[in-house]
Amino acid sequence: MASSRNLSRFWEWGRKIICVGRNYAEHPKELKNEVPTEPVLFLKSPSAYVREGAPILLPYYTNNLHHEVELGVVIGKGGTNIPQSNAMDHVEGYALCLDMTARDIQDQCKKKGLPWTLAKAFNTSCPVSDFIPKETIQDPHNVKIWLKVNDNLRQEGHTSSMIFSIPFLISYISRIITLEEGDLILTGTPKGVAAVQENDEMVAGIDDIISMKFQVKKQTQ
Amino acid sequence: MASSRNLSRFWEWGRKIICVGRNYAEHPKELKNEVPTEPVLFLKSPSAYVREGAPILLPYYTNNLHHEVELGVVIGKGGTNIPQSNAMDHVEGYALCLDMTARDIQDQCKKKGLPWTLAKAFNTSCPVSDFIPKETIQDPHNVKIWLKVNDNLRQEGHTSSMIFSIPFLISYISRIITLEEGDLILTGTPKGVAAVQENDEMVAGIDDIISMKFQVKKQTQ
Ligand SMILES: [Mg+2]
Ligand SMILES: [Mg+2]
Ligand SMILES: [Mg+2]
Repeated sequence: MASSRNLSRFWEWGRKIICVGRNYAEHPKELKNEVPTEPVLFLKSPSAYVREGAPILLPYYTNNLHHEVELGVVIGKGGTNIPQSNAMDHVEGYALCLDMTARDIQDQCKKKGLPWTLAKAFNTSCPVSDFIPKETIQDPHNVKIWLKVNDNLRQEGHTSSMIFSIPFLISYISRIITLEEGDLILTGTPKGVAAVQENDEMVAGIDDIISMKFQVKKQTQ
Repeated sequence: MASSRNLSRFWEWGRKIICVGRNYAEHPKELKNEVPTEPVLFLKSPSAYVREGAPILLPYYTNNLHHEVELGVVIGKGGTNIPQSNAMDHVEGYALCLDMTARDIQDQCKKKGLPWTLAKAFNTSCPVSDFIPKETIQDPHNVKIWLKVNDNLRQEGHTSSMIFSIPFLISYISRIITLEEGDLILTGTPKGVAAVQENDEMVAGIDDIISMKFQVKKQTQ
């Protein structure tokens, strides 16, 4: 695909992060949410991106920052109303991602009927790995994603357990929000979400294809 | 300010649209919402931008698409933890904006504790005027914004009625979400929000400084 921009550094110029909630049946159960009949979508802004070497910051307003390890899908070719049948042609690769979530704030937002922005879209709420070229992952619905905190396994899930497949999500989203080159779709998290504290170290991976490490730090004002 | 990009076409490359809800006391009242003690933030993605000449599309899933006319603030200089005292130095100009809202979907999201994405962030949900250089609007808290549908005045409000001022909003947002050049902040809508139908024509303006015209069309699949 001809492009003037380097897709392997999509976080530097990509304009959208579209997240899917509750896409593994066991995760909504652990949070006592209904298993959805349609994808639950929310947005992070690109300033949420953070890369290995920089810390994940605890927002000043939360006491319950949760990790959610997720497979990210990187869009190479944009489109609107993309049919499921050729949705995978729009994918150029993948990334391992964390959907960092201020769970206490999210609970308040849900109770009050407020948007999830403060719970989901704060600075450093989207740690991302290096770009993984499409050919490296033969079947994105057949990999294991995992996350350890201070060497203890917290999350381990298999992408075969997704409720809505990647082609379905691409097709569904693109009817509502046009996809563009450099966009990232977070495909949901398996069970095991839990809190992290200052100085915790998280290591996450996709099988033995890729791994990444992040430390949690307090936000300095 | 030196820049390789043309800020007067911020919608082509800007990466964030941050919206403030309930920022005019009379609008939350008409929707029976509490007047907030802190700004309510939500996001649109840049694919929501639409410019004069192109239609505003009724999403296939709504029966109650509302107009909200708003003053948009265009960021020229990014920053994190920006103090209120020099927040206006980060502003390069303004735009007249509509925050198109699928009100029926928003009501459902509020009831179910779901994110507002489908209600607020769909394609063409952010019509924007031409860029207005900062010096054209001497005091952004002293202009009237208005909107007509088929020549009938529906919304008319004065920016002096904002609950949270522009410097306050810039400072508050930048503690949570880093601002970047080309970002747009929608500052909330005065009372008078109501539904539009297919083929309705909306004309909106800021005093006699700028106006823009949009037609509503059905989404074609
Ligand atoms: Mg998630
Ligand atoms: Mg949202
Ligand atoms: Mg609004």
